Amino acid sequence: MTQITTTDVAIIGAGPAGMLLSHLLAAQGVESVVIEARSQEYVASRIRAGVLEHSTVELLRSVGLADRLEAEGDEHRGIHLQWPGERHHLDFVDLTGRSVWIYGQTELQKDLIAARTAAGQQVHYEAADVALHDLRTEAPSVTFTDPSGEPHRVRARAVAGCDGSFGPSRGAVGADLRRTWERVYPYSWLGVLADVAPSTDELIYAWHPDGFALHSMRSSTVSRFYLQVPNSTSADEWSHDRIWDALAARLGHGQDGWELEPGTITDTSVLPMRSYVQTPMRDGRLFLAGDAAHIVPPTGAKGLNLAVADVALLAPALADLVRGDSRQADAYSDTALRRVWRCTHFSWWMTTMLHTGTDPFDTQLQLSQLRWVATSEAGATGLAENYAGLPIGF
Amino acid sequence: MTQITTTDVAIIGAGPAGMLLSHLLAAQGVESVVIEARSQEYVASRIRAGVLEHSTVELLRSVGLADRLEAEGDEHRGIHLQWPGERHHLDFVDLTGRSVWIYGQTELQKDLIAARTAAGQQVHYEAADVALHDLRTEAPSVTFTDPSGEPHRVRARAVAGCDGSFGPSRGAVGADLRRTWERVYPYSWLGVLADVAPSTDELIYAWHPDGFALHSMRSSTVSRFYLQVPNSTSADEWSHDRIWDALAARLGHGQDGWELEPGTITDTSVLPMRSYVQTPMRDGRLFLAGDAAHIVPPTGAKGLNLAVADVALLAPALADLVRGDSRQADAYSDTALRRVWRCTHFSWWMTTMLHTGTDPFDTQLQLSQLRWVATSEAGATGLAENYAGLPIGF
Repeated sequence: MTQITTTDVAIIGAGPAGMLLSHLLAAQGVESVVIEARSQEYVASRIRAGVLEHSTVELLRSVGLADRLEAEGDEHRGIHLQWPGERHHLDFVDLTGRSVWIYGQTELQKDLIAARTAAGQQVHYEAADVALHDLRTEAPSVTFTDPSGEPHRVRARAVAGCDGSFGPSRGAVGADLRRTWERVYPYSWLGVLADVAPSTDELIYAWHPDGFALHSMRSSTVSRFYLQVPNSTSADEWSHDRIWDALAARLGHGQDGWELEPGTITDTSVLPMRSYVQTPMRDGRLFLAGDAAHIVPPTGAKGLNLAVADVALLAPALADLVRGDSRQADAYSDTALRRVWRCTHFSWWMTTMLHTGTDPFDTQLQLSQLRWVATSEAGATGLAENYAGLPIGF
Repeated sequence: MTQITTTDVAIIGAGPAGMLLSHLLAAQGVESVVIEARSQEYVASRIRAGVLEHSTVELLRSVGLADRLEAEGDEHRGIHLQWPGERHHLDFVDLTGRSVWIYGQTELQKDLIAARTAAGQQVHYEAADVALHDLRTEAPSVTFTDPSGEPHRVRARAVAGCDGSFGPSRGAVGADLRRTWERVYPYSWLGVLADVAPSTDELIYAWHPDGFALHSMRSSTVSRFYLQVPNSTSADEWSHDRIWDALAARLGHGQDGWELEPGTITDTSVLPMRSYVQTPMRDGRLFLAGDAAHIVPPTGAKGLNLAVADVALLAPALADLVRGDSRQADAYSDTALRRVWRCTHFSWWMTTMLHTGTDPFDTQLQLSQLRWVATSEAGATGLAENYAGLPIGF
């Protein structure tokens, strides 16, 4: 027999967007039930973004979720931007008064799980056949089957689709309303994890004729690298020697005495590059947040931050809605999409500025733009304010 | 029998670049002979750009060429940037301390001709069969036939190619050195001249789903408009009624009470949009300046200003060269090209931000970028510093 639960908000997806939303709702006295298709172990170990923008950190601090972040994370003043022969440091703190933090999404996910577990949050992991119902009424519900085979129905006042680009929420927006925008890029990233101390204090974004390279980090002993590779590349095509040679060349090993320290590579994977936006982010009592509504290429480090900005808007909107005031809920899609398009543009801009293509005219535009961004205060500030993040609600 | 003239610099082209160069050289005591394929009347009446950037005006002032510009030109603090529903004023003076001046290239050309005539400058108009010789020696020369059929040879220490994209100088750079970059845009401009007072104090750059529109002006009684049209449009396809309807729609007639005042259209023409750069800008004793080396689409108002910046660098370099010091001449191409690529990038950026295409994803990027440029101080300053112009020698 179907188990019935009644709550204020049914949240689909226990990733950072869904778990943070349940936390923010609880802080406003609003109940939620979280439904997740994967296991807790899977969700907690999924490796994703590592850069938290200023507003994200402020929000986490304001709701008591930043203790471990501040103890174990690493505050960065900016990034290095380089092309052959030149490396420039852009100091976001000097330019905009805002910094960024390096803290893996995995770590944030652990903090969210710990906080929600301590608060007694109801989370259904390994939920199968998740389906959304009656979204255009005031009594929507979500059904699923639990790991023991038992059917469930969660009745709610609103449903939050935080289940990413493969979950059912995206497709539950009515076809009569739904519009999508997409851009597929003609290159991918080869992601490389290595057991070696980072050779840089802050991230290096490198334009190079052979292709873009990024030197990032996970901790003081683990470095993270990315190399631009053609689409449909297999990680097997890249031996560890080939990876270190390419990183040394593209990141400028030996330039002005800078050295790239190689180490043991523990993981490689290929990441596609895609921009995707689905509108509206609301249909009746269904509200989308995070990857369920939009995907950005990783170059601007915006994916996780955009999900956080969505739920920061959505939580107060849903709190009002369940109390009978729908004004913020009515404005949610338009307000959220303004930032979504800003970050989509910025991510596209960073991506197309840094990845090399086949048109020599584009190459010259890239180099002139990089030089301008690195040497003009307006140019540098433009990058900094987008990278370090606009205020929530922008 | 061939008439032989000996001078310091043979200047090919009597447009603004060539005539300003002869003026700047004379101010440094360097002699020149100017050779022009067209008649003086043709050159003086050629309608081109109308926006002078800050550095251009400063340079003209410093060499006594700005009296009529200051009396009859119009100083603008900035531009209006708009899209349906919103118009924003970008105040370049507030943002960068620099203004721009509206003064037709035709007027500047008249001032240059007057100044050079008063100084007794030797200018050969209607020169046929212009050819460049011995450029990789220290004794180059230029030959041509004058209107009476008499052959001439001008022996010089250097040759300045200021003869635009159709003159012989561009092709005289050795094929062993020459590289070209080009971008053709999938749209053109329909230029419209009308006997009516401008309906705006400063230029309006308008993004519109139907296509870009620009409201510019020539004087207090003559307005200049541009409409984005498909390539291979004929001006005949645009009746005067159709032009005014399109301008009213794209420029937002009726929006917030703003009205477009129509008038008598006196001229229409179709302008192609193209980016073109040829490098290097020097081969031996030949030096290119202005359109002979680069073409930009008109959206950023950079064409004339870039020619002025070239000759502002070239004049002192040639003055040193004829006196035996080649250091500035050796640096000329690289130094000039830095600005050329900056302006090429900026012109491409303005063009692609404002002209509508067929990809709905690009449309959203444009609108997000316009909103950011109009509302972020860094965004607005970035546009302003490029539009009002970087310092000479940047």
